[in-house]
This record gives sequence, C-alpha cells and structure tokens, in this order.
Amino acid sequence: MAHWIRIEYQGRIGFGTLENGIVHLHKGDMFAGAAPTGEAVALTEARVLTPCVPTKMVALWNNFRALAAKLEQAIPPEPLFLLKGNNSFHPHGEPIRVPPSYPGKVVYEGELGIVIGKTCRAVSEADAASHIFGYTCINDVTAAELLFKDASFAQWVRAKSFDTFGVFGPVIATDVDPMTLHIKTILNGQERQNYPVADMIFPPAKLVSLISQDMTLEAGDVIACGTSIGVGSMKAGSEVSVVIEGIGELRNRFG
Amino acid sequence: MAHWIRIEYQGRIGFGTLENGIVHLHKGDMFAGAAPTGEAVALTEARVLTPCVPTKMVALWNNFRALAAKLEQAIPPEPLFLLKGNNSFHPHGEPIRVPPSYPGKVVYEGELGIVIGKTCRAVSEADAASHIFGYTCINDVTAAELLFKDASFAQWVRAKSFDTFGVFGPVIATDVDPMTLHIKTILNGQERQNYPVADMIFPPAKLVSLISQDMTLEAGDVIACGTSIGVGSMKAGSEVSVVIEGIGELRNRFG
Repeated sequence: MAHWIRIEYQGRIGFGTLENGIVHLHKGDMFAGAAPTGEAVALTEARVLTPCVPTKMVALWNNFRALAAKLEQAIPPEPLFLLKGNNSFHPHGEPIRVPPSYPGKVVYEGELGIVIGKTCRAVSEADAASHIFGYTCINDVTAAELLFKDASFAQWVRAKSFDTFGVFGPVIATDVDPMTLHIKTILNGQERQNYPVADMIFPPAKLVSLISQDMTLEAGDVIACGTSIGVGSMKAGSEVSVVIEGIGELRNRFG
Repeated sequence: MAHWIRIEYQGRIGFGTLENGIVHLHKGDMFAGAAPTGEAVALTEARVLTPCVPTKMVALWNNFRALAAKLEQAIPPEPLFLLKGNNSFHPHGEPIRVPPSYPGKVVYEGELGIVIGKTCRAVSEADAASHIFGYTCINDVTAAELLFKDASFAQWVRAKSFDTFGVFGPVIATDVDPMTLHIKTILNGQERQNYPVADMIFPPAKLVSLISQDMTLEAGDVIACGTSIGVGSMKAGSEVSVVIEGIGELRNRFG
C-alpha cells in the first residue's frame, strides 16, 4: 500500500508517497511508472494540494441501501450520476467557502472516491479493478436548498459545483480493498456519519465498468461513490472531517 | 472580427486565424496576446480540432422563449444548467459516434456557444462582455430517451455526456454581436432549426455574470446557450450542420 500526495513546497509543485509525515518526492507520472527522486519534504513544510487533477468528477446519487431505505427511494437499476464542476476541486486543509451568491443550507457528504489509473473505455467489470489506481476521501459539499428550488429542473450540478465544494484527498491510497472500509464524517468533533462501503448498491468495479460504457474515464478522474445516512448542514466556522481508515482524514473548515 | 481555429497539421497541433481557407498560425495564448508566426497552412491540409480545450462546458436548459412556450414550461427566474463531460468534446468533421451502450433516440440540438476569454469570478453583467472571447457553434447531442428513463432522477448529465456528444467549432468568432444572429440546424440538407438568439431568456452577458457568481469560469470554458424549437433525431448516416452566419458551419456525420 502507498499513500500518494501532491504538495506545494518551496514555491514548487511536487508529488510523492507519504509515510509518517514525510513526503518522498517522485518524478514522472503518478499513474504510470513514477520514480523516487531521493528528496524528502516534511508535510509540515508543505501545503497539501488535491492529490490529482481530474478531467472530471462523476458523483453518484442514491448508491447506498441504507439511505435509499430511509428516503424510500427504489434501488436504481443502473448508476445515477452527475458531474461536479472542475472549478469546485479543493484540497485538504483549505477552507470550504460560504457561497456569497447562496445564503441557504450547505451540507457535507462524506464519500469514498475512486481514482482512475488509466484510460477506461467500455471496460468489463473484471477488467475494471486494473484500471483503478486507488481510493481517496471526498466531501461532496452541496447547496441543499438549490436542489429542488426549481420545480421543473433539479439543479444537481449547480448545487454541487460552487467553488471549493469538490473537496478530496489528502491522499490516494493504493492496494486497499474498499469493500472492508467504513466512511466516517466528523463535524466539530462529533461523529455524524459511519457507514460501510459494503452497503454500496454499485460497488467500485461495477461503477467503473458501467460508467465507462458511456463516458471515457481518464487517469486521475474521480468517481464520488455517493453518500449514506447522516448528512447534515455546516455552519460558518464548522470543522468537518471525512475519515476512512486505511486511506486518511480529509479535514476542512467551512467559512 | 477574427475566426480562431485549432488544427492538427504535419503531425503538430497549432492554432491561428482562418481566412479564405488559410490558417494563419499564431504562437502564445489564443486568449491573451497571440502573435502571428508568419506561417500559413491550407485548411484542406489540416485536421480541424475543437477550437479550444475547455475545463468545462456549462449547458443551459430552457433558455429560449419559443421552446418554453411550446413545451409549456415557465420562464425560469434564473439559469438552469448542467455540465457536459469533457470526454464528450468533439470537433467539426469527425463522426458523432452511435453509443454502443445506448440503443435509443439521439437528437441534435443546434446552439450558440459562448467562449470565455479570461477568468470570471462573480463578474457583473456590465463587466461580462469583456470576459467573453467570442462565440462558436455547438451541437449539444443528447441521448433523449435517457433523460427521464429513471423516474427519481433526471439524467441530464449522462444523456449529454457520451463520448463525441459535445460537438463545437469549427471556429471561435470574435467581435460579433450575438443578439443579431440566427441559429440554423440542417439535417441531411433540410433546415430543421432556425431561431433568433434575440429570443434567449438569459442572453450571453447575463449568463456569464450569473453563472460566475457560483462557479469560476476559466479562459476557454464554453457555455452552451440552450436550444429552441426544431430538435429532432439523427439516424445512423445522417449529416447534421449547425450554421450561424458570421460564425461558421459545424458539420458532422452521425454513426
């Protein structure tokens, strides 16, 4: 297992593997044969960036059985998804911004993120695993009151694409079995979400396979797997963490 | 007025201004101080690429009064939009692919495209014009039967994001007044759409201003302004053109 991270340090941008608070810098392509440079940087001397720069982030809706049951939603026959705007991508540690243009409720959604490792075009479920580079933590921040504000058109994309609302990182963990993991969201020190990945309706390999039938996925693209019960609102000043044991802790202040 | 185009020629990628079938190559940044290199390439010797590489394409729904009236939709109080996946971006001249994973009806939607010229973050309507680089033709191809296939979740993003469904180009025209233009769509030699930009509910400067309140727009980003009446389906072998006088003709085969 490795934990890949991207950082800004000494005015430069670099990436490498994180071990015990030290980033071992690498050169080349994170997804294809990166090699250590021999340099190391203490994480305390660096600013954490998003661990990759996706060309797109696909975000699932209604992908956990417990939440579907609570909301009395049917189990969907195929993945239901939207895109979060690239302008929303935001790293660990930087404040999530209260939108000046939207005064309503803003909610956290702790999620597992799949990071694609190589171009996927109509891959089978059996081949999907070899196209997944690793997994990350996601806070799929949502302007909840926009979703159904207009009766004629559900505003999923807009509600989830405000600048800073696509929070992911701090690392991409490789060689983890996601089906054994739990997603926890901690708001101001209190656990608000704690749900098993195993409750997912379309698990990672199936998601990658099905989505790749329609849309080519590129190395570094991220699939936000959807959330489960315990979503709640953040107040200005709230601190929110998405914690996945074996992956890491994605912590941000709101406001 | 200039018509900017991006091409592949002699194994290289370049961009420049198109005049009478000749591309006058430029160097630098198309959006910020490009300078002519003195080289010229005949368009017949080049392959047309998308005229820019957007970080995102925002696509409007219900933005023309005539179509709203026909569909008995209310005039929306604010822009309603989705994102088309970056995997869908596709140039003039290359076939739009019949999705192997979707057997249903595929429709053309001829649209005006706004191309952003510099970073827009909460710009006023008065300032928006100076942030628009120019205008292009768009065919906002849509897998129509997916839109409302699932009763619980309208699949706008998926229906409009199949590979090759985000067709735009061939050029970006600068210094045009879009409000005087008409959008025509020609299917197999027959005019199917012909509607005035002036019928737009949220015209370009207003769109850029309002969307930029929520989402930062970057140079090269594209806003597809939505379509009006005359949308129809394409059969394998159909040839479809979106023609905007003063901008150009975006022509593709389907299948």
